[in-house]
Amino acid sequence: MSAPSLQVFALDGYPEGQPGDDVAALILQIGFEFAPGDILVVTQKIVSKAEGRLVDFRDIEPSDLAIRFAAVSGKDPRHIEVVLRESVRIVRMVPALGLIISETRHGFVCANAGVDLSNVRGYEVACLLPLDSDASARQIHELISAKAGFSVPVIISDSFGRPWRNGIVNVAIGVAGMNAIIDYRGQTDSHGYEMHASIMAVADELACAAELVMGKIDARPLAVVRGYQYQPATGTMRDLLLPPERDLFK
Amino acid sequence: MSAPSLQVFALDGYPEGQPGDDVAALILQIGFEFAPGDILVVTQKIVSKAEGRLVDFRDIEPSDLAIRFAAVSGKDPRHIEVVLRESVRIVRMVPALGLIISETRHGFVCANAGVDLSNVRGYEVACLLPLDSDASARQIHELISAKAGFSVPVIISDSFGRPWRNGIVNVAIGVAGMNAIIDYRGQTDSHGYEMHASIMAVADELACAAELVMGKIDARPLAVVRGYQYQPATGTMRDLLLPPERDLFK
Repeated sequence: MSAPSLQVFALDGYPEGQPGDDVAALILQIGFEFAPGDILVVTQKIVSKAEGRLVDFRDIEPSDLAIRFAAVSGKDPRHIEVVLRESVRIVRMVPALGLIISETRHGFVCANAGVDLSNVRGYEVACLLPLDSDASARQIHELISAKAGFSVPVIISDSFGRPWRNGIVNVAIGVAGMNAIIDYRGQTDSHGYEMHASIMAVADELACAAELVMGKIDARPLAVVRGYQYQPATGTMRDLLLPPERDLFK
Repeated sequence: MSAPSLQVFALDGYPEGQPGDDVAALILQIGFEFAPGDILVVTQKIVSKAEGRLVDFRDIEPSDLAIRFAAVSGKDPRHIEVVLRESVRIVRMVPALGLIISETRHGFVCANAGVDLSNVRGYEVACLLPLDSDASARQIHELISAKAGFSVPVIISDSFGRPWRNGIVNVAIGVAGMNAIIDYRGQTDSHGYEMHASIMAVADELACAAELVMGKIDARPLAVVRGYQYQPATGTMRDLLLPPERDLFK
């Protein structure tokens, strides 16, 4: 068996986009020819924007909690209010860093509930995570696969910080058409050892590989990973959420 | 400017290896022809093994702390003892999961101080992280680059778990020849927004991309990333460590 290899490339030509767009239809308009085995990685921002997950700050009445935190952290109280509304559990509030770590309705624990102010047209508009990121991935997956005539798994990616490590990396926030993880538990390695703690979060690793070609400033919202031997499945980002009993950092 | 693309492929032919090996020399013996722009990702295990970072359990006298934790967690007390000796700070001890989260001398916060029992020949042998993982990366980088006639950055990778997310992913534990991060702070995106919190941990993302071709069971210890536009630099994994004031989960 020859050594595995894969290719990762960004797709050009996705339009600026606006609320109400059909992301899958716009992707198809690019005219890219998918090949069997391709995985499509789509950045969260174009999905959120198309789904109208934008909040105009003029519509936001900040709570006392938001006003107080904003005052001590130097943030806009309406931004803080949006973050609080997008959270179901606060893990840490860090005024000195202007940072709220919280859990979203999806179960993601991340900074500022994934609420983003950059790369959205217009001033004072916050971009929220898709309401149901697996459903968003599934919708794109189904239309692209139907047109291609074979399954094209879809990963929706966003960039999250990590405790204990500097910098942000891409993660998968929505998955359709493939297993998000590979579970090696119970298998033995080449020396006969049983593998412990060996669930690989491959959807997160694929999102990372995609980020390397998407870039941050040039903001290419689409990438294709070709040649990776994924496990076909319905797929869900829920496999990437830590079971409560393993959450040591509540 | 055309859309960026990259290739990731595993290298076959690295020998079984033993303590005292020169990793760079063994890599060169494979005869792979590096191209300008290639990044070499090397899995921690072959580096640790070559550097003799193996501990025979028969030489380990467990402390009372190790014996107590092992008893309640069902682990081998000698394994726990090795983990404690490789730690400079304990973040969490979780008997129910048999898990110790601690900080290593390098500054990594991870499970069981990166001490591994799998994929090392012989019974009851623990494999420790390289003593100075940047130095290990630099040594390989320098010899490979000298033979190639151009710089070949080297990343030493290991797989770490993450709080709040299920599964492990590859990270960079040693870096030479490139910047481990890209700092976008102060730059504006395509809509004129200044980018916040935008340090990308690209060395970690490259390690993730490599894992996708290295695999876990087949254990290919070497991968090449070709076509990624890295920033040439001395490089260090220290850029991937969180400054103490941002460590919210001590």
